[in-house]
Amino acid sequence: MQGTMIYGAGDIRFEDRPEPAITRPTDAILRLSATCICGSDLWPYRGLQPINGPTPMGHEYCGIVEEVGKDVRNIRPGQFVVGSFATSDNNCLICQNGYQSSCIQREFMSAAQAPFLRVPLADGTLVATTDLPPGQLIPSLLATSDVLGTGWFAADAASVKPGATVVVVGDGAVGLLAILSAKQMGAERIIAMSRYESRQKLAREFGATDIVTERGDEGIARIKDLMNGIGADSALECVGTQESMLQAIRSTRPGGFVSYVGVPHGVALDGAGLFFAQVHLHGGPAPVRRYLPYLIDLVLKEKINPGKVFDLTLPLDQVADGYRAMDERRAIKTLLQP
Amino acid sequence: MQGTMIYGAGDIRFEDRPEPAITRPTDAILRLSATCICGSDLWPYRGLQPINGPTPMGHEYCGIVEEVGKDVRNIRPGQFVVGSFATSDNNCLICQNGYQSSCIQREFMSAAQAPFLRVPLADGTLVATTDLPPGQLIPSLLATSDVLGTGWFAADAASVKPGATVVVVGDGAVGLLAILSAKQMGAERIIAMSRYESRQKLAREFGATDIVTERGDEGIARIKDLMNGIGADSALECVGTQESMLQAIRSTRPGGFVSYVGVPHGVALDGAGLFFAQVHLHGGPAPVRRYLPYLIDLVLKEKINPGKVFDLTLPLDQVADGYRAMDERRAIKTLLQP
Repeated sequence: MQGTMIYGAGDIRFEDRPEPAITRPTDAILRLSATCICGSDLWPYRGLQPINGPTPMGHEYCGIVEEVGKDVRNIRPGQFVVGSFATSDNNCLICQNGYQSSCIQREFMSAAQAPFLRVPLADGTLVATTDLPPGQLIPSLLATSDVLGTGWFAADAASVKPGATVVVVGDGAVGLLAILSAKQMGAERIIAMSRYESRQKLAREFGATDIVTERGDEGIARIKDLMNGIGADSALECVGTQESMLQAIRSTRPGGFVSYVGVPHGVALDGAGLFFAQVHLHGGPAPVRRYLPYLIDLVLKEKINPGKVFDLTLPLDQVADGYRAMDERRAIKTLLQP
Repeated sequence: MQGTMIYGAGDIRFEDRPEPAITRPTDAILRLSATCICGSDLWPYRGLQPINGPTPMGHEYCGIVEEVGKDVRNIRPGQFVVGSFATSDNNCLICQNGYQSSCIQREFMSAAQAPFLRVPLADGTLVATTDLPPGQLIPSLLATSDVLGTGWFAADAASVKPGATVVVVGDGAVGLLAILSAKQMGAERIIAMSRYESRQKLAREFGATDIVTERGDEGIARIKDLMNGIGADSALECVGTQESMLQAIRSTRPGGFVSYVGVPHGVALDGAGLFFAQVHLHGGPAPVRRYLPYLIDLVLKEKINPGKVFDLTLPLDQVADGYRAMDERRAIKTLLQP
């Protein structure tokens, strides 16, 4: 088969790769229905995250089970499944506490921008639907695998409650789906920080009540103006830079909640500043597995349509064009069809 | 009257000071029943926190109301009162959310190591008892003003729940009362990180089930050994240094809770490290006012005896000896009698 590799900044190649095979008795092999490019894939693509030689890319996936290892109990060939970007046994003490993305057996997935994929710990990682879903729901089901699950964690980790005031920093796909998530959790007012018109439109569609285009001190002043002069109950940081992190912290009232769900790049938080901001801070790799059954159900019942973040669909072999479009902000998120 | 001033590192003077008077109609003047020296007073005493010239010291207090300004409604002369180190109107949106220590009208108290004290925003800051309390309860009532309130916040901010496993980093008075607080909240296992025998003894008396004397990687390994190899549900950071903060974070399981209640000195948290630790982090100046009615009640019913942290009592005019004893770790905490 052919799969996606990164060789360096801006250098994505779709090339011959060994077909994945069962290597451990807890593995499953999937034939992917769809895969996509993540905002986090742009860090190495932009040369902002070092790689050790050519690296297989992709960690968002859904598809049909082709084969399972001999110790797999809950997943069967022929089922449609979605899994998280982090594998989990869904059984250890950390998983039992709902943090499957830090499972003691966790591996981070890769090589999903390909037609076939090996998934370790299949029983604990994959969630199967009862029936094969209709094709038009595939984009939204694919979204649950990471981008929606991560946006959902952003809202959950920032304790969004009915009636809450919420700021979302970042108008990428995760930020947009954090808006959808906050709306689902009953937020009354959702401020999207966004400068791009097409993203503002989707932000409003997903539930944003206000758009703030300013950043830094000006952005914070605008938010405080909108929020009793004091700040929001919750701020959801969906970028991962120092600037966005401080934006989120400084937009939140004392006692409020800040979540961060993108791997921080070059972020250092001053202890005393954090102390006097007096916010709750929680983040990390989203425990998507915790949310998957619920989110898949919302999609199958057509209560949400997170697949709307895919504004570019390409055949898998044009994956390099997909990266370019996202890097140049011509696309919010690219879906790839194997 | 005479009051306590710091002139520089190691230079505490008890000297003539103007007697406090009502300056705003919301003020009250107290005749203090007792005051004390805070662990945080040692930062400038040790030259680790700059001061701008001679500065009045002390922010923990309880006593009898002498006089109130004309707009004070709830507090009357003759009442026994306790107040927080942070003044609050107890009415703004931040106070309503329980974060009185970040009240929009907050001032940090000082000049309490003296016989008389002016307290701004008396109605929102002070809590009066129904009757004058018996003298033997004064130390414990004084403790509610800061050191117990702060230890209680440490346990509350780290979401200590019945059955929880808890690590307390720091065996100063706040750390010891964080142990008492965690015990009151139903923690099942409380590990105190302590190297000093007299403090270990009090830690056990307050509810510690285990003592860990190691620090750094060794300390973390010991804690993980005691906690399923995974880490504690909650860690309470009661020191304020980089080392103690990382100790707390690294002792906690993913999804667990870390609180920090001492002003961080020289602390910088790496964003990516925090992300993958995946803990909840919350801290700041303790909103003692939120807890005061409950804590005063526990003391008056003699359900807790937080006054035990005072292992040295001196007449107020020997305040400089009190600082020295705490600096040299001959005393955990010094009570001063006006």
